[in-house]
This record gives sequence, structure tokens and C-alpha cells, in this order.
Amino acid sequence: MSVPSVSNSITVRLELPGRTTAVSELTSAVERGGGLITALDITAASNDRLRVDVTAAARDTGHADELVEAMRAVDGVEIGKVSDRTFLVHLGGKLKIESKVPIRNRDDLSLIYTPGVARVCMAIADNPEDARRLTIKRNTVAVVTDGSAVLGLGNIGPLAALPVMEGKAALFKRFADIDAFPICLDTQDTEEIIRTVKAIAPVFAGINLEDISAPRCFEVEARLRDELDIPVFHDDQHGTAIVTLAALRNALRVVDKELADVRIVMSGAGAAGTAILKLLLHAGARDVVVADINGVVHSDREDVRDGAHGHLTWTAEHTNPRGQSGTLKDALVGADVFIGVSAPNLLQGKDIGTMADDAIVFALANPVPEVDPAEAGKYAAVVATGRSDSANQINNVLVFPGVFRGLLDAAATKVSEKVMIAAANALSETVSADELNPAYIVPSVFHPDVAKVVARAVADAARAEKEESDS
Amino acid sequence: MSVPSVSNSITVRLELPGRTTAVSELTSAVERGGGLITALDITAASNDRLRVDVTAAARDTGHADELVEAMRAVDGVEIGKVSDRTFLVHLGGKLKIESKVPIRNRDDLSLIYTPGVARVCMAIADNPEDARRLTIKRNTVAVVTDGSAVLGLGNIGPLAALPVMEGKAALFKRFADIDAFPICLDTQDTEEIIRTVKAIAPVFAGINLEDISAPRCFEVEARLRDELDIPVFHDDQHGTAIVTLAALRNALRVVDKELADVRIVMSGAGAAGTAILKLLLHAGARDVVVADINGVVHSDREDVRDGAHGHLTWTAEHTNPRGQSGTLKDALVGADVFIGVSAPNLLQGKDIGTMADDAIVFALANPVPEVDPAEAGKYAAVVATGRSDSANQINNVLVFPGVFRGLLDAAATKVSEKVMIAAANALSETVSADELNPAYIVPSVFHPDVAKVVARAVADAARAEKEESDS
Repeated sequence: MSVPSVSNSITVRLELPGRTTAVSELTSAVERGGGLITALDITAASNDRLRVDVTAAARDTGHADELVEAMRAVDGVEIGKVSDRTFLVHLGGKLKIESKVPIRNRDDLSLIYTPGVARVCMAIADNPEDARRLTIKRNTVAVVTDGSAVLGLGNIGPLAALPVMEGKAALFKRFADIDAFPICLDTQDTEEIIRTVKAIAPVFAGINLEDISAPRCFEVEARLRDELDIPVFHDDQHGTAIVTLAALRNALRVVDKELADVRIVMSGAGAAGTAILKLLLHAGARDVVVADINGVVHSDREDVRDGAHGHLTWTAEHTNPRGQSGTLKDALVGADVFIGVSAPNLLQGKDIGTMADDAIVFALANPVPEVDPAEAGKYAAVVATGRSDSANQINNVLVFPGVFRGLLDAAATKVSEKVMIAAANALSETVSADELNPAYIVPSVFHPDVAKVVARAVADAARAEKEESDS
Repeated sequence: MSVPSVSNSITVRLELPGRTTAVSELTSAVERGGGLITALDITAASNDRLRVDVTAAARDTGHADELVEAMRAVDGVEIGKVSDRTFLVHLGGKLKIESKVPIRNRDDLSLIYTPGVARVCMAIADNPEDARRLTIKRNTVAVVTDGSAVLGLGNIGPLAALPVMEGKAALFKRFADIDAFPICLDTQDTEEIIRTVKAIAPVFAGINLEDISAPRCFEVEARLRDELDIPVFHDDQHGTAIVTLAALRNALRVVDKELADVRIVMSGAGAAGTAILKLLLHAGARDVVVADINGVVHSDREDVRDGAHGHLTWTAEHTNPRGQSGTLKDALVGADVFIGVSAPNLLQGKDIGTMADDAIVFALANPVPEVDPAEAGKYAAVVATGRSDSANQINNVLVFPGVFRGLLDAAATKVSEKVMIAAANALSETVSADELNPAYIVPSVFHPDVAKVVARAVADAARAEKEESDS
């Protein structure tokens, strides 16, 4: 499935002889080498030479090197600087912190700093709630990781995780006008993580946990939710769960089935899987069967019965109403919905063929899904993946900006299952009845309304809950 | 010494009758009340009414209320909304976090976030030094407080300290283009502070400690310097020390004396005092006598001899070469330099009169100095304070932006006394021989070159030290 991609894109500065065919020779060489030219600028010319910047997408870094060699073979070419576009865009980091107030003269200084600032400090000391009015707390979220489970790269540590956290913060700004700051922790000890996040919490109105490996992420999140007075959200769990529920609602609209009636089979009982499961049950799903690497989870399975894995015990108690056992493939026979958040290539098209008519397949393992989406599409009515190069991408960017926007707008102190279901419902409703289509069950991340619509639903739900708990 | 100040400034929206004298009646009323009108806009008019926004500086909030009442007494006036300018400028906080990279479409997303970002992460995992090239670490400083000694306000806690830390971060940006982020810690336990700062350090290239009370600040700083590989700078100590040394060098130029020859008396042995003392000794001062609330520090004093206060023991061992004892006033007789970082109104003009000819007086207690600067000026050749409303303000803003700029530019891993002396020398040299004047021993904080000059000197010194330690 590897095709040229801008994320493996290079810009080559080179000089060509002035002959008429030189540019076409160059572009042909790149194309023959399997590269995709996305920009070509002639930046200087003399009577017998051209200076050219050519940008080409490659399949990977090895392929990029091959493309440079292909260019070098053009007669009379001189290769200059080769830049990697991805690295160029990350140079110096992706965030900046700016002052919102002008500092032009001593008067400005005395307003924003001493002595004026002292009155603002005292106002907050007298009434801590004023911090949400008079400081950045109002709009600031921490993106917290320990670098233990970064993307699909594993435990690469806090420093190497920083480019991802910066990117996440940039997305918070782009999609929800939230000021987010990356906190990369130089510890992977559960208690130390909890203690550190609690210690730095005063500046923030919300905590977004990111890329912390299971099972530590469960404990970290649960404890922080208990011990902090601001919402704590683990995007890998809850962002994925919300967008999955939203997409499933729309997929069910496509095939005209009801969540309460369908048989759902899940593959994966990790962080994302457990969060999806819980949200599905809260939303009204009644027949869910979960399989992990040891097959269907049921209370007689040895590793469940021994109680060593708390989340498996919980799963066995709350799923599998028809008492199934066996393998994932066994469970799949006659099921309406498959949701995979597990491992690549577990299933083949024919396994999907054993499901009920109008089957729904969400194969979310990334970058390689549980089943090839093209193969699955031969048997299922709706197919979704986590990939950006096929239809129906289940992408957390659809969710976390709007969720936090809503939580901040409501000055929420927590985020509940009710709030998350409100977010999922709002997201699913951004796809109108006219637009709904087997290949369009979720909107584009660049759909202009998504974050706003989700934010409004979340803020309303959070405010309602607050009033309930106050009354 | 209380005069109307913009930091106690109000903007009043009001309506006046249309008679010719109405505006002058209003301004007279404010002026008679002791207010200072700094802006007056007629924002709307009809045949018989004027709508006016008037901004006036008051002495304090009580005085601001009196000014509103004075305006209310004008015949036919209707007072509308009264806004406090200081609070207005702090609304919503003073910082924002922006993305430096555009996110317009899926291509942009795949460059700055998944999948492209994975290659950047792996580059840093392979070579951690690349974090200074490919992430915000390169230019990012943490402004860390526990809220225990905020300005002169005392222990107001982390949340109420946030407006000061935001202001500090805004100054970092304004004067040195540094991205600084406030970290307000919900703990005042020394070990917990150390642990937390170490845990969040990966994102930062420097730590600026701020408003942490003594003696905990000494331990926090010393331990963090030992245990982190980025520079740690306690501005209340070292910023003050550097600007004091720079100002003293220039004051000595004014009176044509040498640092190695003068007798220096200090009042105050707290955080700032100890840091100033150490830097003076490093810079070549040889005769320093320190007094605290119990008088001159010497090794026979009971509270020094018992060893309970480590910094007093150190002070007794390194100062007072002529073995003085007695009170601050005793020590002052015949001294060339007085440096106070202690308490208001300890001295009177006649005490300064006992000093040597061409005495230098730095009365830095804030907001009320150790001696009234006007009184001191009758006897001393050069007088400096911490106040913005008299000449020669000893202001840390002259120092910390340039110091950190230089440290970041050199990718420094520590900040030594040698580096701090380089900063002080560079700062003093920004006042040219032509400009030097008893009332101009330090430049304005808005002097365009200050941060640049300090940064260059710091970067050079830090690089030289690095090469030394590498060789």
C-alpha cells in the first residue's frame, strides 16, 4: 500500500544546462523512478544554465535517495542542497508563545507587570475562581505524555515524543483556538506521573493525556480524575471511543440497523478497546463480544478467572451475553459489526463474508488494518479504517479539539460518559441525511463546523451535569 | 511618595449635558480630586448630550472611587460603566500559544503530525541532541514558582502568582524573543519542587526560578543545577546580583574608585543579598561587611557561631576582613558603598553623611527603600533604588532576557559565576563614557541594545567555558 507521500517529500536544488529538453529530462527521470513531482521552480537562469528547485514525493527515505540519484543521472546536472520537507517544517519546533499585550513603554510595564499586576494577584488570592477570568488558565490545556507509547513507535521517551505533542498542541490551536502546551515527563513511574501532573495543574483548565502505555494509563487517568478539579481526558482512549461511536451511529443509519439490536464483535482489549467498549455499552449496545490475543473474553477463561487483569474481569462481566467462547473468527460468524483496535492482518475477506448481511467493519489498527479494506469491502456494506488514504478515516482530530473547547467554555471540572456521548452524537449529526453514504460516515477533519458543533454539545452537557450536581 | 499611576487607572464611560463648559467642569473635578486625566474621548454626541470615555490615573483603588464620586458631582452627568485599566489588560491572561506551521489541508497534517512526524521522533530518539534543532526545546524556558514569595505580597500560592509569571514570560518574549511558559507549582515542599521540575525538564532549554522564598530557594536551585543538564537561574538572586554589579561598576566610574579598593556595607543576608555578595566577591571586591537584623555578621555572633544558618556561616567566613561588629550604622561610618536589600527606612540622610566622600548608595528595598533617595542624595554622589519613579532603577528586566538569550544561543548546560560577571560587565558597558552620569548608571529597560549586548557576552562566556571543560 506504499505510495509516494508528502511526508517523505524532498526539495532538491540543482542546476541544469540550458538546453530545451533539460527540464523534461529531469521530470521524466523522477517519474520513471516512481517519484511524484509536486513543485518545480526555476529560481535563476543565465544563457546556458538554469537553477531549479524541484520538490518530489517519495515512498520512504530510501526511495528519496534513489530519486536524487535518478536526477543526478541527467546529463549536465549539478545537484546542490537536498532538503527533507518534513524536517524543514519541524526546524526550531512548531509552537511559539506570544504576549497578547503590548509592552511599548514604562506605562505598559507598570500595567502588565509591577506594580499593577499585584492587584490582579490579590484579586485571585481573594477569589481563586477569578483565575479563569484574569489568567491564561481560562484557555490553556496541558498535553501530557511520558513517551511510553508514542504513535506506533513504542517507548521512545519524553524528548523524542515532543514533536508529536507539539503537533497535537498545534492542532488544538488550529481547530479549537485552544492554547495547549506540551508536557513531556522524564518519568514512567505511575505515582510520579500523577504527582507531577497534580503539581503543575494550577496553570491549566484541562489535561489531555497522550501516548501513555496501558495499563499505567488507566491508573494515571482514574487517579487524576479523582484528585484534580479540572477535566482529564486520555485522547488515545476517549477520543478514539467518541469518534468510533459517532461513525458507528452513521454506519448503522446507512444499513438501517439499531445499536441496541446489533451483534458487535471487538478485537482488542487494550486502552482504546476498553474505552470503546465502555462507551458503546453506555450508548445502549447490548450484545458485544470482545476477543484478544487469547480469543473471546469470557469468565471461564483461565487468565480471566485468575483475576490478574482487572480490565479483563470487567470485560467478561459486562459483555458476551450469549456466552460465546473460541476464537475471534468464531465470534465473527453472523455478527453485524466488527471493531478492531488490535493488530494487522488478523482477518481475510472471507472471514468478513461469514458476518451478517450489511456488515459494518471498522479495522482501526494503524498503519496496517486488521483486514485489507478493499477485501473487506467485497463483503461488508460499510468499511472504515484509521488510514488517511481510504474512505471513512476514524481520526481523533474530529473529536479532541471540540471536546476541550466545550469543556473550557463550560469551565467544566470533569468529563463524564454523558458528555462523551453528547460529543459522539453531535459529531455523527454533522453528516446530514443528504450526505450520508457508505463512504462518508464521518466528516473531513477540515469540515468547518465539526469542532464548533461538538464544542456546543459538550458545553451544554457539561453545564447540565454541573447544575444537576449543584442542585 | 504616592502619586497617580497608570497601574491604578480607570476608564469611566459617562454622559454629559451639551452645555459648553461641561467637559471642562468634568476635567476640573478630576484634577481637583488629585486625579490625572490621561485620555478623554467623546464617543458620541447628540444636540443636548455628549457620551465621553475618560481615563484617569489615581493613587490607589480608594482614590479611584473618590474620583468617580467627584465626576458624579458634575451637574447633569450620568456615570455609566467604570473599568479598571489594569484588570482590563489582564482579562483572559497575557499569553497565547500559536502554531508556527500552517495546517491548511491533509498534506500539511501529514507533514506536521502523523505519519510524517514519526521520522522526526525517530531522529531524536537516535540522537537526543537533535531535540534542540527539531523541537521547541531550542527556545523554550520554564518560569517556575511555588507562589511562596510573590513580589512583596508574600505567600499567596501558585494560582495567584500566575499573573506575575505570565508577565515575566511576556517580558522574555518582548526583550529576547524567548518562548517562556509559566509553571505554577501546587506544592511548597522542597523535594517535591525539585522532583517536579526535573520531571518536566525535557521540553525546556532553561529554568527560571521565580518568587520562591528563602531558604528553600537555595536548596532548590543548588540541587536542580546539580541534577539537570540545562541552566537553572533564580532571577530574584542572580538577576538582581548581575544588575547590581553592573550598576556598581558604573557608579564607581562616576566617582573614580576601584571595586578592589572600596569598603562596601550590605544590609540584608537573604536570597538577593547572598547572591549579590557572592558575585561582588567573584568580581574582585575585597572589603565587604554584611549586616542583618541582628547587626554586623561576624563569626563570634551567637546565631552565627551556632551554625544553624548555613549562609550566615559562609558570610562570616568570606566577609568582614577588618573584624567589625556592632550595628549597620556603625559599619557605615567611612564606607564607600552601601547596598541595601532589606527593609524600609532603616537609615536617615545623616547616616549617609557618615560615609566616605563620594559615597554610593543603592537602597533597593521595594517599594519603600532603606533610606529616602532624596535625603540620601544630599550626602551621596550616586543614589540608586528599585523604584521606577526615581533615577537609576535597579531592574532585573535589564538582565534576565539577555542572560537567557545568550544561554540558549550557546546551548549552555549551566550558568556559572563567570557567565554572570560577563553579563554584568556587558550591561555596564552599554552606558558609554559620554553618557555616564550620577543619574544614569544603568540604561533604560527599553534601550534597544541591552538584551543583545548581554546575550552576546553571555553566549561567548558560556561557549568558552564549554570548550574549556571539553578540553
